[in-house]
Amino acid sequence: MTTKLDLTTSDPFGVQNLPYGVFTHGGHTRVGVRLDNSVLDVCSVPDAPFADAWATPSLNAFLALGRESWTTARTWLQDLVGDGDERPTIEQHLIPLADVQMEMPLVVGDYVDFYASEHHATNVGRIFRPDSEPLTPNWKHLPIGYHGRSGTVVVSGTDIVRPSGQRKPPTEPTPVFGPSVRLDIEAELGFVVGGAPSRLGEPVSLAEADDHLFGVVLLNDWSARDIQAWEYVPLGPFLGKSFATTISPWVVTMDALRAARVPLLGQDPEPLPYLRGEPTDDGASTAYGLDIDYEVEWNGTVVSRPPYRTMYWSPAQMLAHLTVNGATIRPGDLFGSGTISGPEKAQRGSFLELSWSGQEPIRLDDGSTRAFLEDGDTVVLRAVAPGPDGAVIGLGECTGTITPAR
Amino acid sequence: MTTKLDLTTSDPFGVQNLPYGVFTHGGHTRVGVRLDNSVLDVCSVPDAPFADAWATPSLNAFLALGRESWTTARTWLQDLVGDGDERPTIEQHLIPLADVQMEMPLVVGDYVDFYASEHHATNVGRIFRPDSEPLTPNWKHLPIGYHGRSGTVVVSGTDIVRPSGQRKPPTEPTPVFGPSVRLDIEAELGFVVGGAPSRLGEPVSLAEADDHLFGVVLLNDWSARDIQAWEYVPLGPFLGKSFATTISPWVVTMDALRAARVPLLGQDPEPLPYLRGEPTDDGASTAYGLDIDYEVEWNGTVVSRPPYRTMYWSPAQMLAHLTVNGATIRPGDLFGSGTISGPEKAQRGSFLELSWSGQEPIRLDDGSTRAFLEDGDTVVLRAVAPGPDGAVIGLGECTGTITPAR
Repeated sequence: MTTKLDLTTSDPFGVQNLPYGVFTHGGHTRVGVRLDNSVLDVCSVPDAPFADAWATPSLNAFLALGRESWTTARTWLQDLVGDGDERPTIEQHLIPLADVQMEMPLVVGDYVDFYASEHHATNVGRIFRPDSEPLTPNWKHLPIGYHGRSGTVVVSGTDIVRPSGQRKPPTEPTPVFGPSVRLDIEAELGFVVGGAPSRLGEPVSLAEADDHLFGVVLLNDWSARDIQAWEYVPLGPFLGKSFATTISPWVVTMDALRAARVPLLGQDPEPLPYLRGEPTDDGASTAYGLDIDYEVEWNGTVVSRPPYRTMYWSPAQMLAHLTVNGATIRPGDLFGSGTISGPEKAQRGSFLELSWSGQEPIRLDDGSTRAFLEDGDTVVLRAVAPGPDGAVIGLGECTGTITPAR
Repeated sequence: MTTKLDLTTSDPFGVQNLPYGVFTHGGHTRVGVRLDNSVLDVCSVPDAPFADAWATPSLNAFLALGRESWTTARTWLQDLVGDGDERPTIEQHLIPLADVQMEMPLVVGDYVDFYASEHHATNVGRIFRPDSEPLTPNWKHLPIGYHGRSGTVVVSGTDIVRPSGQRKPPTEPTPVFGPSVRLDIEAELGFVVGGAPSRLGEPVSLAEADDHLFGVVLLNDWSARDIQAWEYVPLGPFLGKSFATTISPWVVTMDALRAARVPLLGQDPEPLPYLRGEPTDDGASTAYGLDIDYEVEWNGTVVSRPPYRTMYWSPAQMLAHLTVNGATIRPGDLFGSGTISGPEKAQRGSFLELSWSGQEPIRLDDGSTRAFLEDGDTVVLRAVAPGPDGAVIGLGECTGTITPAR
């Protein structure tokens, strides 16, 4: 089965994007590249440069090849897609999206979740620790993060079973057990790590980060706020987060996001040298932000538009921090940005913040109101970034529906 | 090359033990079983029941087969080793330990570290939070834990590069960067998870835990206390731990530790039902402790003998808690018990506690004193458990030497 292409610069999955995913079709699971509303079955194209890696059921083999190979692949893809003479050759390798099943794009090694939005961290601090300064003293000196559960990172479309656990209502002397009653989202970007594994004891510097940053996914860090509030002191979030994290199926490469790089808004105090951006050849900085527009849809109503450009810490800073103690990275590692919240109320990336811990319920278009997720609710995350010459780079969708606790 | 066996019940690696590891010999890496001071090259034995799984360079395939297969393998091994007539057959499959290189026994999926010793949690609470109650209000209601970095779990004998990072001396207004000056150990047991992966949203109950608990390793959760102290509020330990975690090469099976099961010392308040032990057929409880004697050696001096039997939370309780929110487990997951500290000073499992944060230096046999690790220091963890009929079950050694920061 083939399909016709009509790629224009306004197509969010056009020749400037070319995100990678993993799909199943005809009983085989393999790597594909999204073009418009089709999947290019790359390993079936004659003379495809990395057909062996692309014929596998995860991106990990391709991730391990490193930046030089990623560039070779992008050049080959853009030549293939951009040249009208090649079009008949391409079309027989295109499969309509509707005919494939999208899978987890990678086998996640270690998953780390950061906390890189000053607005989010401030809001959460105000809500969870009203008697303290909203930002902890370390917050502006290092990108705070923690390890999450890699085995429960699932692909968009996977149903999310409402988690049960311990919570302690303020009115009760001891904790109770049952389904979470404060089930929330966190709208984030996830960064996919590739390149050769680093060596134990050897940090990856800010300048080296781009060799290991392959691309981004949308990431929903589902959060049970009542479970989290009871458990998280002193060792951090655990069961309040570990039941599921959803990522979008298409990994948009950092190359496709080149035109979306923007300076950070400014860091004061200046971070320690290992976190300090250095000028690059093109006059930018190794510590760059990303100009990504994000939206959060709840049962069909867009409830928030978090702007990624307002994040305090850059992706390269997060990676440099993560490894500065000599911790290794491997192809397939994933790290989340933390909830993206802008300065405005309508830019907050969690329902905890949008409803201010339930005190200011959110009205949906169907007339209902919400503070936290109800069974049957569906959340869709979407994002776009500017590409070169007016192109739009789509990041696709990241969806999940809540099913009742078992 | 072959070697003679002389297995008696006092041999810590005799017929009642039979721990699994992964070794390299003759250019091939595969699963072996330790017998005395030799490795039984199990996949080379004619009619070995799981030769395909044992011919791989990690235990993961064997872990995935599940409890019934583990029992079959143990019966086959005990028949093989225990029957004198078979001895000539065995001996040609034995390789002296001195001739092999021990490798990481498994590819770690998710790594979780618990905090299950009341004495340890109390000591750390007193040291880190002197103005608060030493135990947080949640501590006796749930086994507190957090996710660690699976990619930096390394096998015994791997050198540990002193980590660098941010720390904030109390005398400084802002953090400084450099090598950790408070590098510590945490003497723990690690539990290796096996069996079929659980399904997202479906907890593993206390009664089902034994189907997923394959065995134990010694685990050293190296900890940079200065990095940890500055970073850990509010999301928990991160770079203070993620640079390295060392495990022993031999996984001692839960079957070998059957005779070491002991009742917990008592839990008050009674935990919620999902954490409550139920009687088993043999009159014991699904929430059992383990009677393991542990020792910590620092540059040749035994500085502590932590008794595992004093732990508050049981391994099955930790697994049931870990999954009660529906989080999945996979063969190859690993969880640590947290530092083992008994009630006596000479039973503390970290140098932070032994030296009371440096205020009470520890004297080594060479006349030197220590509060935290110096470059060149070597730590060896060892443990033994009682087997049936007076047998001793050895857990082997877990060693590491500190090399200077890079």
